[in-house]
Amino acid sequence: MTISTIGMLAAILTTGAYIPQAYKTIKTRQTRDLSIVTFTMLFVGTILWFIYGMYIRDTPLMLANGITATLSGIIFFLKINATGKRRRR
Amino acid sequence: MTISTIGMLAAILTTGAYIPQAYKTIKTRQTRDLSIVTFTMLFVGTILWFIYGMYIRDTPLMLANGITATLSGIIFFLKINATGKRRRR
Repeated sequence: MTISTIGMLAAILTTGAYIPQAYKTIKTRQTRDLSIVTFTMLFVGTILWFIYGMYIRDTPLMLANGITATLSGIIFFLKINATGKRRRR
Repeated sequence: MTISTIGMLAAILTTGAYIPQAYKTIKTRQTRDLSIVTFTMLFVGTILWFIYGMYIRDTPLMLANGITATLSGIIFFLKINATGKRRRR
């Protein structure tokens, strides 16, 4: 395996990693074991990476972080929605 | 805010993001709502990024991914441990 294959595989794995978590959370709506702080940090952090990528005109950086921002954003909103519902009960 | 401050803040947020999740999971041992596929991908992906970082001699890349590999690794092992225990019951 060449080093660029390793880098490419690393990028695919870490970028795609939130797809199964988002799928699971959308399907089950169960968010109790997820840390709200983690998903807030991921959501805000990847948006900032995206802005940084736009500024330095780095398309792979924008693409990877745009995907992660969307997925972590979905999980984040499902988490705060569930937390809000529990509080209102 | 300068663009390097945005990049630095992005790096701190996305690197530190797994600290609260690892803390929560260690404390509660509750992993039901976590996707095992997500944490497998994150763990393997960040190890590959670390190897890539070693090869291209990029210290920030190694540091960030070393931290994330450790934290996602902890969550991953707690998840498979809990899954194994449920199966044995």
